[in-house]
Amino acid sequence: MQGIENLLDNYRRDFDRYLEELMAAQKIQPGLKKAMSYSLLSGGKRIRPILTLLTCQLLEGNTGAARRVGAALEFIHTYSLIHDDLPAMDDDDFRRGQYSNHLVFGEGMAILAGDALLTQAFQLLLEVELPAERRCRLIGLIVESAGVQGMLAGQVMDLEAENREIDLEELQLIHRNKTGALFQAAILSGALCAECNEQEWQALKNYADKLGLTFQIVDDLLDVIGDSSKLGKEVGQDLKRGKATYPALLGLKESRQRAERAAAQARKSLDIFADRAESLRELVDFVLERSS
Amino acid sequence: MQGIENLLDNYRRDFDRYLEELMAAQKIQPGLKKAMSYSLLSGGKRIRPILTLLTCQLLEGNTGAARRVGAALEFIHTYSLIHDDLPAMDDDDFRRGQYSNHLVFGEGMAILAGDALLTQAFQLLLEVELPAERRCRLIGLIVESAGVQGMLAGQVMDLEAENREIDLEELQLIHRNKTGALFQAAILSGALCAECNEQEWQALKNYADKLGLTFQIVDDLLDVIGDSSKLGKEVGQDLKRGKATYPALLGLKESRQRAERAAAQARKSLDIFADRAESLRELVDFVLERSS
Repeated sequence: MQGIENLLDNYRRDFDRYLEELMAAQKIQPGLKKAMSYSLLSGGKRIRPILTLLTCQLLEGNTGAARRVGAALEFIHTYSLIHDDLPAMDDDDFRRGQYSNHLVFGEGMAILAGDALLTQAFQLLLEVELPAERRCRLIGLIVESAGVQGMLAGQVMDLEAENREIDLEELQLIHRNKTGALFQAAILSGALCAECNEQEWQALKNYADKLGLTFQIVDDLLDVIGDSSKLGKEVGQDLKRGKATYPALLGLKESRQRAERAAAQARKSLDIFADRAESLRELVDFVLERSS
Repeated sequence: MQGIENLLDNYRRDFDRYLEELMAAQKIQPGLKKAMSYSLLSGGKRIRPILTLLTCQLLEGNTGAARRVGAALEFIHTYSLIHDDLPAMDDDDFRRGQYSNHLVFGEGMAILAGDALLTQAFQLLLEVELPAERRCRLIGLIVESAGVQGMLAGQVMDLEAENREIDLEELQLIHRNKTGALFQAAILSGALCAECNEQEWQALKNYADKLGLTFQIVDDLLDVIGDSSKLGKEVGQDLKRGKATYPALLGLKESRQRAERAAAQARKSLDIFADRAESLRELVDFVLERSS
């Protein structure tokens, strides 16, 4: 674990700097730039862009392109957090250890900052140094995962499920869309910055699916047993809101077992890459054991 | 005027049907689809897609591509209206003769419906039947006009200018961004669905600029002297909100004169196209004389 934690720390710092540079280089109305930067540059684990980069490296692809794609994914992830935290949605006051965007800049500006991050993500993707045909495929992959058959579908299901009983199947569907789709896009877009065969593509897809599941179960567990100072957001929020979660439906022990099983499956799906996928394999352990 | 009104009516009906087909063909979570369709398919003048189509026809380009691009622009325009009407923004209760999206579906769903329309616009653009290189240029043009150097910049300036005195120069800048940028994208993306030389490109750019200005001054005038039943939204909203407008800054007469001057300039910029640009020329008169 020590090895992967150092590696993640380095990559995270590198991405933080890169995102800062990208924002500094953009001509944006000052009030809007401030609101966008506040959430974009407030830390975060940067797991999505790191997944893009690690996958691209595994396949010996164009890491410059992967870095930019990863940044675009972080723009999209941040937009979804800002809109998700709004009073009309999850109504969260804290995010990444600071006040939510709308509490600092007002709801109107928070809505626009989210809109702007989504729009500028496409600007970044258009500038990725890959042939136009490949660039379009990449954008298509990300649109699909962030759109009505991915993240947005999950957010809508989540909104509609509030204060209503849902079963495990529905919970899994919500998570697969809300979190899993963008995880998958992160990994597969790393593959699109390189060349890979159908078998490798399927293996990565399977890896993404199980890693996303691991991530989400652990996320639910941390909301029950986590440390809010480490998490940077209040714990117990799901329970307070009457939200369905893995621990609420399965109990702590069974949830933990499911997370471990998903993690094992994620690691296993990398078998065809042998030693070359060691970082992606260690990342599974990190996701499983994380405390924030 | 009769000729252009019939033509616009036909095109509008055609686009309404096309947008209905596009929505029917998309696999979208039912609650979200309903909220998106409510605003997208609620009429509207469809001026942006018609501009795309007319420009493409003028240059004898790929009208199938232009039609799809026009639909994407209507998705983006509708998203901006939904978010603009939210309580945290303009707080409008009516739009296109019906209750605002958030009053029917709740604020959370309205935010997501806007997000979804923006995201799906890119899906539509990716499917435009043009070579990938051209498709990327097209998406780039639209991202720029909808983004932080276009429409979003205008919305932010508008938000920040509320209850503050602004002068004519600032007002023009807000309008150029908030409305003009997407008008320009509509016209120039029509040109990108065809071939045109630099002189024609500049002429169309100039036309877009002056047409956008005409449109906006008339919009401000209609908020003072218009008929709310024709407009489908309440009049007097700008005054109520203490918003700067052309009539507030220049008076009704001078505003009207400026609109006429801009309209004449718009028509004049089409000179190089001679008779071929007759529809675009008549469209200027329609925008100038419209009552809704």
